[in-house]
Amino acid sequence: VRTIRLVVSYDGTDFHGWQVQPGQRTVQGVLEEAVQGVLNDETIRLHGAGRTDAGVHARGQVASLESATRIPVEGLRRALNTRLPDDVRVRAAADAPTGFHARHSACARHYTYRLLSEEDVLMRRIAWHPRVALDPAALEAAVRPLTGEHDFSSFRASGAVDTNPRCRVSAVGWAAWPGGLQLDVTADHFLYHMVRNLVGTALAAAAAPDPAGAMARVMAARDRRAAGLTAPAQGLCLERVHYPEDPS
Amino acid sequence: VRTIRLVVSYDGTDFHGWQVQPGQRTVQGVLEEAVQGVLNDETIRLHGAGRTDAGVHARGQVASLESATRIPVEGLRRALNTRLPDDVRVRAAADAPTGFHARHSACARHYTYRLLSEEDVLMRRIAWHPRVALDPAALEAAVRPLTGEHDFSSFRASGAVDTNPRCRVSAVGWAAWPGGLQLDVTADHFLYHMVRNLVGTALAAAAAPDPAGAMARVMAARDRRAAGLTAPAQGLCLERVHYPEDPS
Repeated sequence: VRTIRLVVSYDGTDFHGWQVQPGQRTVQGVLEEAVQGVLNDETIRLHGAGRTDAGVHARGQVASLESATRIPVEGLRRALNTRLPDDVRVRAAADAPTGFHARHSACARHYTYRLLSEEDVLMRRIAWHPRVALDPAALEAAVRPLTGEHDFSSFRASGAVDTNPRCRVSAVGWAAWPGGLQLDVTADHFLYHMVRNLVGTALAAAAAPDPAGAMARVMAARDRRAAGLTAPAQGLCLERVHYPEDPS
Repeated sequence: VRTIRLVVSYDGTDFHGWQVQPGQRTVQGVLEEAVQGVLNDETIRLHGAGRTDAGVHARGQVASLESATRIPVEGLRRALNTRLPDDVRVRAAADAPTGFHARHSACARHYTYRLLSEEDVLMRRIAWHPRVALDPAALEAAVRPLTGEHDFSSFRASGAVDTNPRCRVSAVGWAAWPGGLQLDVTADHFLYHMVRNLVGTALAAAAAPDPAGAMARVMAARDRRAAGLTAPAQGLCLERVHYPEDPS
């Protein structure tokens, strides 16, 4: 039995998220159907590194599967793309070590959240215009306290229960993109809605006299009610998943 | 009677082009319906500066209309956006001199065509990946002969009859955008499918030993059969329309 690793990109707009749900169009569902068709094996299960929500995109989602197939990985990639709808693409396929699991083996995830500085109809599916002026210096100050290992309970979706609210943020910062500003954040794991809540809170903190202090107070509260609004799904994208064995 | 000028942006993906067609969803049709609803006048006709094709986008389409309404232009803009679907936005509304006509008064149009250097599912609606490596220097050389006034018959869609095949190209060149390269071309007017045929021909000419010479030979032929393939609609965007009275 081989273990195969796929790197997958998708436009999340027309999906009800990653995870299979009866009667809904999901990325996992569409991908499993394509894999099962190519490998002629209805028992194939895919494991995704990140269970992205409805409307959330990916450029570097990773999925793993086990199969006894002998098809070469490049042939598998091409056969899958022939069967897949045009809003999902398999960017790469590779053999992985026995025991590799896209979610359990991952050591870090890199997400981006794209903000538009003005309304742009061509970018409305992949970015969000918050209807406030974007202040790069204040936004950068607001996210600086996030670096390091902290309890992120304040940014967890209300009602969600995750095993461990402590996350290790290894990199976070804003960068210019042609439509405005983009948040890049890499952490070992994320809580449900965490990036979207961080963005909403950063926008609120950036408008305060002391953005870093405002963010630090929200973190210290460990209470969802202290944080800002949840930014909408369409700005969020899973860019890359890191594994210990990968070259850096 | 006032003359009003609108600047309109749209994602052309889900439209059968600009121009009203019975039983089809068109930008003009959707806009006229919104204008008629806001002004409570079913006889309003919109004139667009460029009759964009199915799948072609706009960031700066201009439309004009005449009405006896007294509504302030900013109120009109907001009321239209409330009624319009989210793939069309009115970016600006302004009073225009009597006799202003979005198409007849225009002195130049600026189009972009976006090429992707690799497949990108998030950009597939607004750019095209030609499945060849993009060579910026060769592509730039290929479009250099287009500057100035020329007979562009070679780039006119087969079967199309335009009044005047001579166009004055005032600016043309490639620029980097995050996904790859973008052609910017400004001319007094364009023939049907002209930009898309220029892009297909530029890609073919860029692969020749002498890209500028290859393009010049296609131009001199004045024959559609001498030119390259028609690049697909989704990469094309009407960015701006120029009028003699505008500040430069």
